[in-house]
Amino acid sequence: MKEFIGFEQKRKRVENVMSIYWSELIRGLDPYVPGEQPRDRQYIKLNTNENPYPPSPAVLEAIREHTNQDLRLYPDPNGDILKAAVADYFQVEKNNVFVGNGSDEVLAFAFISIFKQAKPILYPDISYSFYPVYSKFFEIEAVTVPLTADFQIDLADYPVDNGGIIFPNPNAPTGRILPLEQIEALLQRNTASVVLVDEAYIDFGGVSCIPLIKKYPNLLVAQTLSKSRSLAGLRIGYAVGSAELIEGLERAKNCFNSYTLDRLALVAGAAAMRDRDYFDTTCRAVMATREWVVSALKQLGFEVVPSAANFIFICHQNQSAEELFSELRLRGVLVRYFKQPRIDNHLRVTIGTDREMQELVRQLQAILGSN
Amino acid sequence: MKEFIGFEQKRKRVENVMSIYWSELIRGLDPYVPGEQPRDRQYIKLNTNENPYPPSPAVLEAIREHTNQDLRLYPDPNGDILKAAVADYFQVEKNNVFVGNGSDEVLAFAFISIFKQAKPILYPDISYSFYPVYSKFFEIEAVTVPLTADFQIDLADYPVDNGGIIFPNPNAPTGRILPLEQIEALLQRNTASVVLVDEAYIDFGGVSCIPLIKKYPNLLVAQTLSKSRSLAGLRIGYAVGSAELIEGLERAKNCFNSYTLDRLALVAGAAAMRDRDYFDTTCRAVMATREWVVSALKQLGFEVVPSAANFIFICHQNQSAEELFSELRLRGVLVRYFKQPRIDNHLRVTIGTDREMQELVRQLQAILGSN
Repeated sequence: MKEFIGFEQKRKRVENVMSIYWSELIRGLDPYVPGEQPRDRQYIKLNTNENPYPPSPAVLEAIREHTNQDLRLYPDPNGDILKAAVADYFQVEKNNVFVGNGSDEVLAFAFISIFKQAKPILYPDISYSFYPVYSKFFEIEAVTVPLTADFQIDLADYPVDNGGIIFPNPNAPTGRILPLEQIEALLQRNTASVVLVDEAYIDFGGVSCIPLIKKYPNLLVAQTLSKSRSLAGLRIGYAVGSAELIEGLERAKNCFNSYTLDRLALVAGAAAMRDRDYFDTTCRAVMATREWVVSALKQLGFEVVPSAANFIFICHQNQSAEELFSELRLRGVLVRYFKQPRIDNHLRVTIGTDREMQELVRQLQAILGSN
Repeated sequence: MKEFIGFEQKRKRVENVMSIYWSELIRGLDPYVPGEQPRDRQYIKLNTNENPYPPSPAVLEAIREHTNQDLRLYPDPNGDILKAAVADYFQVEKNNVFVGNGSDEVLAFAFISIFKQAKPILYPDISYSFYPVYSKFFEIEAVTVPLTADFQIDLADYPVDNGGIIFPNPNAPTGRILPLEQIEALLQRNTASVVLVDEAYIDFGGVSCIPLIKKYPNLLVAQTLSKSRSLAGLRIGYAVGSAELIEGLERAKNCFNSYTLDRLALVAGAAAMRDRDYFDTTCRAVMATREWVVSALKQLGFEVVPSAANFIFICHQNQSAEELFSELRLRGVLVRYFKQPRIDNHLRVTIGTDREMQELVRQLQAILGSN
């Protein structure tokens, strides 16, 4: 998730065979390409923002408990057990919560049920690259708003004449966070369309704007269990917002797939939301690692964009990002490189365990020292 | 799955609040409503076509084996392990297989990637009620073709001037099966659009048309692990067809959600496909039960539509289906009743265990005897 389409991968797609049986819409698409999951060797995997710590033991226990003959039965189509756990965590009502098969699915339903408007939607020029894919897939006009020179989202740049606004907070792949006051200022002037704040990385140092949903019926907040709750493998995401926005998402979901979350994901997700201590501990561990890694990389001559996420966005003073990416890969360390305007000299590096990050620093020292 | 929207439920939806923030598309929708999953008491549940037998022990074992720290990592976005197991089962290539989060999701992707055409698509008037929902959701024009008076699909009634054809085989909720020769005859004359055969119930006595995909590049076949492989709780479906049709589905999926199947569903699904003995045994058991139940119900004065599915579609000579439905519900037996033109005096009854079906027959005897 939260990846950018690489140049090589894009070209490969275009060369693919077309079929006379495809719809016109599908012919014109440029699908999203997730970060690589290579199997050729064992890598230190710092390229897809997975959590280096395992899921809570309570999650594994919940799955084991439900691995039984009841799997023959359909899951609860409303996912009540998970909705209740999310609602309880955020102190909102169950009808303020929508759950989906990963936050990507939640975002997709939001695009069709809320963002498919006559006016174009707005999002940052450098951001989660699935937004333009959804826009094209659901035939929604979109306009990008440039980040500032130092990669900040400036919400004052977003005109109110729009069909909706979406941005990640913290932003990806930059890691930069917006303070709540700025989001609330936007909500105060932007009342005619929905503001969707994609908080996939909020738990690594940011403050969620979920409490603002009680004040602003046009605020929708999406989160995922893939990052801060170490459950990328189970595909669980949710959105929190006013009951009317949530009902819009439910309508889309019920026109697409009645049962988007399976029985195990529902109980596992609920267990993850309930185990706050484990969640706090692992989030703090990631943040502590991030802190020393940032210092160490600065000492190696890197500029580091201030990060409130479980990744950092870095750029070396005199070594090209593309070369560093390839060198690291040869040495068994996978990071993410985006061959895209404005950011093609940056690397996005997931925060792993202390040991993994020590190895990253050691390899970077070796690469930089040998030049 | 494979359910019809009840009249009462429809009315309730229309009365729901609308929101100024919804897209016009979402306002106009009439979402699908799955069969009820009541929790007020313990029912003999013959209303959603679940398999009465548990999943294969190999499936539970595979889940247990993968309930570990790797759940922190994303699943394989291509679902290769499951694709390989399906390909192996049907003796096709891996690029002939698409996998999804239940066959409903597979069908949804087929609608947008293949059926969204200038010409209308065709499906039976009495059939899976999710087809009209998808049509509206993806803004696809659809024309229904009436079943014959005895609930048969007559493919000769389907004109070749269409944007695509979809029908379940066996059909739902009737249970009637079409022989392969008739499907092949359709494929021979209908070459300009895709024919999607929805084989959710094929394993209870039908013959799959999957071998025909090698001859007809416009044939797509969808199946599910929810019914014959007792895995409704895990949401696994697949489609088999020419590589070009499969690539069309992949494009749609990769514009919607990179990871639609989680790590546990992938290994569980693969294990289910591999355990052929268990699958054969449980399918045979369901068919054997169906056979005696059909005889018993005929003796009670029911007309029974010939079924090749794990359900039967029945109608009593002198007792209204709606009354029987309510009476059975009071007595703790849930079946499915559709208040729809042409079938509003029929009940759809899932084949459960012998014991469950004996109880059904006993209750029906009591109801009919007391009138």
